[in-house]
Amino acid sequence: MRRKDRQLSEEETVQLFETTGYGVLSTVSVDGTPYGVPMSFAYKDHCIFMHGAKAEGHKLQNIAANAEGCFTVVDQVQTLPEQFATKYMSAIAFGKIQVVEEEEQKRIALEALIKKYSPDFYEEGLSYIERAAANTTVLKLEITNMTGKGRK
Amino acid sequence: MRRKDRQLSEEETVQLFETTGYGVLSTVSVDGTPYGVPMSFAYKDHCIFMHGAKAEGHKLQNIAANAEGCFTVVDQVQTLPEQFATKYMSAIAFGKIQVVEEEEQKRIALEALIKKYSPDFYEEGLSYIERAAANTTVLKLEITNMTGKGRK
Repeated sequence: MRRKDRQLSEEETVQLFETTGYGVLSTVSVDGTPYGVPMSFAYKDHCIFMHGAKAEGHKLQNIAANAEGCFTVVDQVQTLPEQFATKYMSAIAFGKIQVVEEEEQKRIALEALIKKYSPDFYEEGLSYIERAAANTTVLKLEITNMTGKGRK
Repeated sequence: MRRKDRQLSEEETVQLFETTGYGVLSTVSVDGTPYGVPMSFAYKDHCIFMHGAKAEGHKLQNIAANAEGCFTVVDQVQTLPEQFATKYMSAIAFGKIQVVEEEEQKRIALEALIKKYSPDFYEEGLSYIERAAANTTVLKLEITNMTGKGRK
Protein backbone atom coordinates (compact mmCIF):
# COMPACT_ATOMS: atom_id res chain seq x y z
CA MET A 1 0.00 0.00 0.00
CA ARG A 2 1.33 3.40 -1.04
CA ARG A 3 -0.27 5.55 1.68
CA LYS A 4 0.73 3.90 4.97
CA ASP A 5 -1.27 6.54 6.87
CA ARG A 6 -4.44 5.05 5.39
CA GLN A 7 -3.71 1.44 6.27
CA LEU A 8 -6.23 -0.14 8.65
CA SER A 9 -5.16 -2.48 11.46
CA GLU A 10 -6.05 -6.17 11.13
CA GLU A 11 -8.74 -5.66 13.79
CA GLU A 12 -10.31 -2.77 11.86
CA THR A 13 -10.13 -4.78 8.64
CA VAL A 14 -11.87 -7.80 10.20
CA GLN A 15 -14.51 -5.48 11.69
CA LEU A 16 -15.21 -4.12 8.22
CA PHE A 17 -15.81 -7.67 6.92
CA GLU A 18 -18.09 -8.32 9.91
CA THR A 19 -20.26 -5.26 9.40
CA THR A 20 -20.41 -4.50 5.67
CA GLY A 21 -23.65 -5.47 3.95
CA TYR A 22 -22.28 -6.86 0.68
CA GLY A 23 -19.06 -7.21 -1.26
CA VAL A 24 -17.77 -7.84 -4.75
CA LEU A 25 -16.31 -11.29 -5.46
CA SER A 26 -13.70 -11.21 -8.20
CA THR A 27 -12.69 -14.37 -10.02
CA VAL A 28 -10.89 -15.03 -13.29
CA SER A 29 -12.81 -16.41 -16.26
CA VAL A 30 -11.47 -19.27 -18.33
CA ASP A 31 -10.45 -16.80 -21.08
CA GLY A 32 -8.33 -14.81 -18.60
CA THR A 33 -10.76 -11.92 -18.12
CA PRO A 34 -11.71 -10.78 -14.62
CA TYR A 35 -15.29 -11.13 -13.35
CA GLY A 36 -16.55 -9.11 -10.39
CA VAL A 37 -19.97 -9.93 -9.01
CA PRO A 38 -21.78 -8.43 -6.00
CA MET A 39 -22.54 -10.92 -3.24
CA SER A 40 -24.19 -11.02 0.16
CA PHE A 41 -21.81 -12.74 2.57
CA ALA A 42 -20.99 -13.63 6.15
CA TYR A 43 -17.51 -13.42 7.65
CA LYS A 44 -16.71 -16.20 10.11
CA ASP A 45 -13.47 -17.79 11.31
CA HIS A 46 -11.31 -16.00 8.77
CA CYS A 47 -13.55 -17.11 5.89
CA ILE A 48 -16.04 -15.34 3.62
CA PHE A 49 -19.19 -17.44 3.13
CA MET A 50 -21.50 -16.74 0.23
CA HIS A 51 -24.48 -18.51 -1.26
CA GLY A 52 -26.22 -18.69 -4.59
CA ALA A 53 -28.58 -20.80 -6.63
CA LYS A 54 -27.25 -24.17 -7.75
CA ALA A 55 -27.75 -23.29 -11.39
CA GLU A 56 -25.61 -20.14 -11.42
CA GLY A 57 -22.92 -20.95 -13.90
CA HIS A 58 -20.25 -18.35 -14.63
CA LYS A 59 -18.79 -17.97 -11.11
CA LEU A 60 -18.71 -21.74 -10.53
CA GLN A 61 -17.12 -22.35 -13.92
CA ASN A 62 -14.43 -19.79 -13.10
CA ILE A 63 -13.74 -21.33 -9.70
CA ALA A 64 -13.50 -24.83 -11.15
CA ALA A 65 -10.72 -23.65 -13.49
CA ASN A 66 -9.02 -21.15 -11.15
CA ALA A 67 -9.94 -21.18 -7.45
CA GLU A 68 -8.25 -17.87 -6.67
CA GLY A 69 -10.67 -15.24 -5.44
CA CYS A 70 -10.66 -11.69 -4.20
CA PHE A 71 -13.42 -10.21 -2.05
CA THR A 72 -13.77 -6.44 -1.79
CA VAL A 73 -15.92 -4.48 0.65
CA VAL A 74 -16.48 -0.74 0.91
CA ASP A 75 -18.27 1.18 3.62
CA GLN A 76 -18.82 4.68 5.01
CA VAL A 77 -18.39 6.33 1.64
CA GLN A 78 -18.68 10.10 1.78
CA THR A 79 -17.85 12.45 -1.06
CA LEU A 80 -15.93 15.59 -0.10
CA PRO A 81 -16.78 17.79 -3.10
CA GLU A 82 -14.72 20.80 -1.97
CA GLN A 83 -11.61 18.66 -1.51
CA PHE A 84 -12.07 16.66 -4.73
CA ALA A 85 -11.79 13.57 -2.60
CA THR A 86 -13.84 10.76 -1.05
CA LYS A 87 -13.82 9.42 2.50
CA TYR A 88 -14.28 5.66 2.74
CA MET A 89 -13.23 2.44 4.41
CA SER A 90 -12.39 -0.58 2.29
CA ALA A 91 -10.98 -4.03 2.71
CA ILE A 92 -9.75 -6.65 0.26
CA ALA A 93 -9.37 -10.35 1.08
CA PHE A 94 -7.55 -12.90 -1.06
CA GLY A 95 -7.79 -16.67 -0.93
CA LYS A 96 -8.94 -19.79 -2.66
CA ILE A 97 -12.66 -20.39 -3.11
CA GLN A 98 -14.30 -23.75 -2.72
CA VAL A 99 -17.82 -25.06 -2.98
CA VAL A 100 -18.91 -26.28 0.46
CA GLU A 101 -20.33 -29.76 -0.08
CA GLU A 102 -20.35 -31.17 3.44
CA GLU A 103 -23.86 -30.82 4.95
CA GLU A 104 -22.80 -29.67 8.43
CA GLN A 105 -20.38 -27.05 7.03
CA LYS A 106 -23.08 -25.86 4.68
CA ARG A 107 -25.57 -25.50 7.54
CA ILE A 108 -23.04 -23.53 9.62
CA ALA A 109 -22.45 -21.16 6.71
CA LEU A 110 -26.16 -20.65 6.00
CA GLU A 111 -26.84 -20.06 9.72
CA ALA A 112 -24.13 -17.37 9.73
CA LEU A 113 -25.89 -15.69 6.81
CA ILE A 114 -29.27 -15.86 8.59
CA LYS A 115 -27.73 -14.41 11.77
CA LYS A 116 -26.25 -11.53 9.80
CA TYR A 117 -29.14 -10.59 7.53
CA SER A 118 -32.24 -11.87 9.34
CA PRO A 119 -31.42 -11.88 13.09
CA ASP A 120 -35.08 -11.33 14.02
CA PHE A 121 -36.23 -14.30 11.93
CA TYR A 122 -33.71 -16.87 13.06
CA GLU A 123 -36.18 -19.73 13.67
CA GLU A 124 -37.93 -19.09 10.36
CA GLY A 125 -34.46 -18.92 8.81
CA LEU A 126 -33.61 -22.39 10.06
CA SER A 127 -36.68 -23.87 8.41
CA TYR A 128 -35.92 -21.84 5.28
CA ILE A 129 -32.48 -23.49 5.24
CA GLU A 130 -34.13 -26.91 5.58
CA ARG A 131 -36.20 -26.21 2.48
CA ALA A 132 -33.58 -24.36 0.41
CA ALA A 133 -30.24 -26.00 1.26
CA ALA A 134 -30.46 -28.68 -1.42
CA ASN A 135 -30.85 -26.04 -4.15
CA THR A 136 -28.27 -23.67 -2.71
CA THR A 137 -24.57 -23.55 -3.47
CA VAL A 138 -22.43 -22.33 -0.59
CA LEU A 139 -19.04 -20.86 -1.41
CA LYS A 140 -16.20 -20.37 1.03
CA LEU A 141 -13.26 -18.06 0.45
CA GLU A 142 -10.58 -18.98 2.97
CA ILE A 143 -8.64 -15.80 3.56
CA THR A 144 -4.87 -16.08 3.19
CA ASN A 145 -4.21 -12.37 3.00
CA MET A 146 -6.20 -9.21 3.66
CA THR A 147 -5.65 -5.49 3.56
CA GLY A 148 -7.73 -2.58 4.80
CA LYS A 149 -7.60 1.04 3.80
CA GLY A 150 -9.39 4.08 5.07
CA ARG A 151 -9.50 7.81 4.72
CA LYS A 152 -10.99 8.73 8.09
CA MET B 1 -28.13 -14.43 -16.82
CA ARG B 2 -30.19 -17.12 -15.12
CA ARG B 3 -33.13 -14.97 -13.98
CA LYS B 4 -34.30 -13.12 -17.08
CA ASP B 5 -36.96 -11.36 -15.01
CA ARG B 6 -34.18 -9.52 -13.19
CA GLN B 7 -32.31 -8.35 -16.27
CA LEU B 8 -32.13 -4.56 -16.67
CA SER B 9 -32.51 -2.85 -20.04
CA GLU B 10 -29.44 -1.23 -21.58
CA GLU B 11 -30.90 2.17 -20.69
CA GLU B 12 -31.35 1.19 -17.03
CA THR B 13 -27.84 -0.28 -16.97
CA VAL B 14 -26.27 2.89 -18.38
CA GLN B 15 -28.27 4.96 -15.89
CA LEU B 16 -26.82 2.90 -13.06
CA PHE B 17 -23.29 3.67 -14.29
CA GLU B 18 -24.21 7.34 -14.53
CA THR B 19 -25.56 7.62 -11.01
CA THR B 20 -23.65 5.18 -8.79
CA GLY B 21 -21.04 6.75 -6.51
CA TYR B 22 -18.26 4.20 -6.83
CA GLY B 23 -17.50 0.79 -8.29
CA VAL B 24 -15.07 -2.09 -7.98
CA LEU B 25 -12.50 -2.46 -10.75
CA SER B 26 -11.38 -6.06 -11.18
CA THR B 27 -8.17 -6.90 -12.98
CA VAL B 28 -5.99 -10.01 -13.13
CA SER B 29 -2.61 -10.01 -11.42
CA VAL B 30 0.48 -11.36 -13.14
CA ASP B 31 0.25 -14.55 -11.08
CA GLY B 32 -3.31 -15.18 -12.31
CA THR B 33 -5.13 -14.07 -9.16
CA PRO B 34 -8.00 -11.58 -9.39
CA TYR B 35 -7.70 -8.13 -7.84
CA GLY B 36 -10.78 -6.03 -7.06
CA VAL B 37 -10.27 -2.46 -5.95
CA PRO B 38 -12.88 0.23 -5.19
CA MET B 39 -12.71 3.28 -7.43
CA SER B 40 -14.45 6.57 -7.93
CA PHE B 41 -15.37 6.91 -11.57
CA ALA B 42 -17.24 8.80 -14.25
CA TYR B 43 -19.22 7.16 -17.06
CA LYS B 44 -19.01 8.99 -20.38
CA ASP B 45 -19.43 7.90 -24.01
CA HIS B 46 -19.59 4.20 -23.19
CA CYS B 47 -16.37 4.41 -21.13
CA ILE B 48 -15.56 4.23 -17.43
CA PHE B 49 -12.98 6.87 -16.45
CA MET B 50 -11.02 6.51 -13.23
CA HIS B 51 -8.07 8.31 -11.74
CA GLY B 52 -5.36 7.56 -9.26
CA ALA B 53 -1.94 8.68 -8.11
CA LYS B 54 0.91 8.11 -10.56
CA ALA B 55 2.77 5.94 -8.08
CA GLU B 56 0.03 3.37 -7.51
CA GLY B 57 1.56 0.14 -8.66
CA HIS B 58 -0.49 -3.04 -8.48
CA LYS B 59 -3.40 -2.04 -10.76
CA LEU B 60 -1.10 -0.55 -13.39
CA GLN B 61 1.18 -3.59 -13.32
CA ASN B 62 -1.85 -5.82 -13.85
CA ILE B 63 -3.13 -3.74 -16.75
CA ALA B 64 0.28 -3.68 -18.43
CA ALA B 65 0.29 -7.50 -18.47
CA ASN B 66 -3.43 -8.07 -19.08
CA ALA B 67 -5.60 -5.13 -20.13
CA GLU B 68 -8.90 -6.92 -19.53
CA GLY B 69 -11.01 -5.25 -16.86
CA CYS B 70 -14.37 -5.62 -15.23
CA PHE B 71 -16.19 -2.79 -13.47
CA THR B 72 -18.99 -3.58 -11.03
CA VAL B 73 -21.47 -1.16 -9.47
CA VAL B 74 -24.20 -1.78 -6.93
CA ASP B 75 -26.92 0.58 -5.77
CA GLN B 76 -30.20 0.71 -3.87
CA VAL B 77 -29.30 -2.22 -1.63
CA GLN B 78 -32.03 -3.12 0.81
CA THR B 79 -32.06 -6.21 2.97
CA LEU B 80 -35.41 -8.00 3.20
CA PRO B 81 -34.85 -9.96 6.46
CA GLU B 82 -38.22 -11.70 6.49
CA GLN B 83 -37.76 -12.97 2.93
CA PHE B 84 -34.09 -13.98 3.40
CA ALA B 85 -33.32 -11.88 0.39
CA THR B 86 -31.82 -8.56 -0.69
CA LYS B 87 -33.16 -5.94 -3.08
CA TYR B 88 -30.51 -4.27 -5.21
CA MET B 89 -29.55 -2.96 -8.62
CA SER B 90 -26.19 -3.93 -10.10
CA ALA B 91 -24.31 -3.58 -13.34
CA ILE B 92 -21.14 -5.13 -14.67
CA ALA B 93 -19.09 -3.73 -17.56
CA PHE B 94 -16.31 -5.54 -19.38
CA GLY B 95 -13.60 -4.09 -21.60
CA LYS B 96 -9.96 -3.32 -22.03
CA ILE B 97 -8.35 -0.74 -19.79
CA GLN B 98 -5.80 1.75 -20.96
CA VAL B 99 -3.84 4.54 -19.36
CA VAL B 100 -4.96 7.83 -20.91
CA GLU B 101 -1.75 9.64 -21.89
CA GLU B 102 -3.02 12.28 -24.30
CA GLU B 103 -3.42 15.61 -22.49
CA GLU B 104 -6.77 16.64 -24.00
CA GLN B 105 -8.33 13.21 -23.34
CA LYS B 106 -7.00 13.31 -19.81
CA ARG B 107 -8.53 16.73 -19.21
CA ILE B 108 -11.91 15.59 -20.58
CA ALA B 109 -11.87 12.60 -18.20
CA LEU B 110 -10.88 14.67 -15.16
CA GLU B 111 -13.55 17.27 -16.00
CA ALA B 112 -16.15 14.47 -16.12
CA LEU B 113 -15.02 13.38 -12.63
CA ILE B 114 -15.25 16.97 -11.31
CA LYS B 115 -18.74 17.37 -12.83
CA LYS B 116 -19.89 14.17 -11.15
CA TYR B 117 -18.39 14.56 -7.70
CA SER B 118 -17.91 18.31 -7.26
CA PRO B 119 -20.53 20.03 -9.45
CA ASP B 120 -20.66 23.05 -7.13
CA PHE B 121 -16.89 23.53 -7.30
CA TYR B 122 -16.38 23.26 -11.02
CA GLU B 123 -14.15 26.31 -11.44
CA GLU B 124 -12.01 25.33 -8.46
CA GLY B 125 -11.94 21.82 -9.91
CA LEU B 126 -10.48 23.07 -13.17
CA SER B 127 -7.60 24.75 -11.36
CA TYR B 128 -7.21 21.61 -9.21
CA ILE B 129 -6.81 19.65 -12.46
CA GLU B 130 -4.17 22.14 -13.64
CA ARG B 131 -2.13 21.49 -10.51
CA ALA B 132 -2.75 17.75 -10.14
CA ALA B 133 -2.94 16.39 -13.71
CA ALA B 134 0.79 15.74 -14.06
CA ASN B 135 0.75 13.50 -10.97
CA THR B 136 -2.52 11.78 -11.83
CA THR B 137 -2.99 8.62 -13.81
CA VAL B 138 -6.25 8.46 -15.72
CA LEU B 139 -7.59 5.05 -16.65
CA LYS B 140 -10.21 4.35 -19.28
CA LEU B 141 -12.20 1.15 -19.53
CA GLU B 142 -13.83 1.07 -22.94
CA ILE B 143 -16.98 -0.99 -22.50
CA THR B 144 -17.44 -3.83 -24.97
CA ASN B 145 -20.15 -5.62 -23.02
CA MET B 146 -22.36 -4.78 -20.07
CA THR B 147 -25.11 -6.43 -18.08
CA GLY B 148 -27.49 -5.08 -15.48
CA LYS B 149 -29.49 -6.94 -12.89
CA GLY B 150 -32.07 -5.84 -10.40
CA ARG B 151 -34.52 -7.18 -7.87
CA LYS B 152 -36.99 -4.31 -7.84
